[in-house]
This record gives sequence, C-alpha cells and structure tokens, in this order.
Amino acid sequence: MQKAIGIIGGMGSLATCDLFRKIIEMTDAKTDQEHIRICIDCNTNIPDRTKAILGKGENPVPEIVRSGIRLQSMGADVLVMPCNTAHYFYDKLTPFFDIPLLNMLQETAREIQKRGIRKIGLLATDGTVKSRVYHTALAAAGIDLVVPSPVGQTSVMDVIYNGIKASNRNIGLKALYETIDGLLAQGAESLVLGCTELPVAFELFHIDRPAIDPTAVLAAAAIRFVDKPLAGRGIG
Amino acid sequence: MQKAIGIIGGMGSLATCDLFRKIIEMTDAKTDQEHIRICIDCNTNIPDRTKAILGKGENPVPEIVRSGIRLQSMGADVLVMPCNTAHYFYDKLTPFFDIPLLNMLQETAREIQKRGIRKIGLLATDGTVKSRVYHTALAAAGIDLVVPSPVGQTSVMDVIYNGIKASNRNIGLKALYETIDGLLAQGAESLVLGCTELPVAFELFHIDRPAIDPTAVLAAAAIRFVDKPLAGRGIG
Repeated sequence: MQKAIGIIGGMGSLATCDLFRKIIEMTDAKTDQEHIRICIDCNTNIPDRTKAILGKGENPVPEIVRSGIRLQSMGADVLVMPCNTAHYFYDKLTPFFDIPLLNMLQETAREIQKRGIRKIGLLATDGTVKSRVYHTALAAAGIDLVVPSPVGQTSVMDVIYNGIKASNRNIGLKALYETIDGLLAQGAESLVLGCTELPVAFELFHIDRPAIDPTAVLAAAAIRFVDKPLAGRGIG
Repeated sequence: MQKAIGIIGGMGSLATCDLFRKIIEMTDAKTDQEHIRICIDCNTNIPDRTKAILGKGENPVPEIVRSGIRLQSMGADVLVMPCNTAHYFYDKLTPFFDIPLLNMLQETAREIQKRGIRKIGLLATDGTVKSRVYHTALAAAGIDLVVPSPVGQTSVMDVIYNGIKASNRNIGLKALYETIDGLLAQGAESLVLGCTELPVAFELFHIDRPAIDPTAVLAAAAIRFVDKPLAGRGIG
C-alpha cells in the first residue's frame, strides 16, 4: 500500500487548496494512480489562530487535534498543517498523534539556509509576528529576520483578511508594496511568505518580488516523506 | 453544527483540486469560519474507470465505496464524485452510503435545460462516450447530443490522458480545436465538458469555446445542499 498524506486544512480554505495543488503539481506522476493519496479535512470549525494567540479568541488546539485524529483514521501516514500561525501550537498538538506532523517553519528555515540567504523579511499575520515563531525557527538556523513597521504590518493583515480570506480580489496593493520594498531596503535578500494566504496573493496579484513560499516547501517535504519522486520544476 | 461536503477524489487528482477550489470560490464567505467544511479522500488507488467500462481493467466500485464510507465517518453529510466516467457506476454505489451521493450528470442535464440549450456536443472519455451515460441523462431532459468522430475522440483522449492526467502542458491542441469546431458545425449550441480534466484543460490552455462545466455545476449543487449562499459570480 502507498503512503498517504493527511492535510489538516481550513486555515484557510484557499490556502489548503493551494497546498493540495502544489503537492499534485510537484509530484512526478503520469497517471491518476501514480499520484499520491491525499486526505484532507478542510475544517472550517477551527477558530482563528491569531485571535487566540493575542488572547482575544478561542483555543484552536482541540479542533485541530480532532482533524488530525480523523485523518489518521482515514489512513494518513503523515500530517501537514498549511497555516504558519497554527505552528505556534505545534508542541501542544504532536502528543495527540501517532504519526508525524511535519513542521512547516523548520522546513522553511532549512530551505532558506540551503539557499544561502542570511537576512530575510517576514510577511505574516500579527499572531505569527508577535508570537515570534519564525524568529525562533530562523535564529536556530542562523538567519536574521526583519519585520514590517506597525503600519506596514497593517497592510499585510489587510491583504490576508480583507483580500484572500474574504475572497475579495479588488484590494489596493500600494501599501503592501511599500512594506515589501521597505524590508528589502533594510537588507532582506528575500521574503518569507509566512502566512499560507500570501503565496495565493502573490500568484493572484502577480507580485514580483523575491520570496520563499513555505507552502511549496511543505509540499516538497510531504512528497519526500511518502517516498515519491519530485517533478522537475521543484519548489516554485 | 454546519453540514460538511465529502469529495470522493483521485479521479484524477487535479480534477479533485479543481472541484475543491470551485466550491471555495463559489461560496459566499468572508472569513475562514464562514467557509464550508469539506472532507476529501483523493484516493489514487481507484482503478481507471474507462478501462473498467471497456472490459480491460479492474472494477473501481470497491475502492470508491471505501472512500465514500471513510468520508461518512469523517462527518460528511453529502458525497460528490468529480469524475463523469465514474457515474457509470452510480447505481452500484448508492446502496453502500447512508448519505446522498449527488449525481453530476443529472445536475448538468438540469443546468443545460435551464439555459434553454437544445443540442450540445459531448467532450468526454471513451468510457463516458461508449457507456452512453450522458446520452441517457440528456435524453431524459429532451436534449440532443452530438459526439466526435472516432478520430476526433482520439484528440479528446489525448488532452485528458497525455495532457492533464500526465501533468504535461506541452501538448498540441490543433486536433482538439478541429474536433470542437466540427461539433459546433453540426449544430451544437455549446459543449458539455464531460470529463473533469477538461475544465482544467480549458482554463489552462484558454480554450475559448462555449461550454458547460459540470464541475462548477456540481460545486453549486453541493453548496446548495449544505444550505450555504452562492457567491455572486455563480457557475463559470
């Protein structure tokens, strides 16, 4: 029996779909049957992660655990969670599972290290920035991190919440570009798209700036875990 | 508790992802939590449907049933199956499930009827064409169906199997265009994209011909089933 990937999804739905598509496109397969079996629980009952981290909302851990356990019963051999912010709770989640939960942040730190990048800008939710989860993961890999100013951070949240999560394609991008270019001016060699809605936004709005896509990094790690060959084009 | 949609997927993987994306984009939702819970078993162990119908391959029914039952245990309230060809086995599948399995072909026939189309061209796999499943569904709705010549049918199979299923974007489309224009010349007012890989191909290759997309029709039917509002743009 082939190994299967379980995706704990719904954080948000489009980001889940983006990871699903990237796993499919990055797998070297010529027929339906050569593709990887992928089980998804796009669980929209999971409460908002940023609100929980900032002490203004419900704890998302129980709902995430429910999804992971359900995916295990579906036959998943490994779990992935396409939400950077949710990785704040990573250590509280793993004790509930019998199968590995890949760590998107650690995989991303390894990829940045592999590319020889020494200083990178972080685009992410308030929850991810304030909880310093990327700071910790990147510091361990010897990579410097620069974050937007408070005003710049507002422009990132706007694209994530009022743009992608709200299925709204008519948002202004001027403030986001200023934020990005500010980070690059501070010496960031690239950007880490530290919220899974951001690779969706970068593709949708054709934002042309150097960036590392943790969703693609996670897709590649999951494909390697189930012993499948990567397609030629590799991480986007 | 909100109702959940279960997708029996893997027939093929990209088509499954396409339905997933269409459900998300066609749902009127402004936050992660307003989106629909969607469970997916992208089960690539399901044998090829066309081969089975033509008597050259394994019966896909047991593997499809396994996926449906697993999705039921995940909490799905309704099942959908984004593979037109698999609907040949529809009546053999429903006795195994306690929840409804929406019929993509019947939903599509209703949509064609609603648009007042009297004659339509069928682009589909050999299995779907030879098993006459669309002929039956459309005849019941009083709609005439025209199918490609044997040579034309080869061009359709080529795009499905050597193009989309094989993740190959560098295929010639001249033969497919000739096939399509042949159907339109025979009086077809539109085309039914009767294989879930074809809406993917039409989008990817920007094929600009009048067409009904059964994946979008199925997405709309599933959203209605779980009592969620459709977003403004409706069926593509």
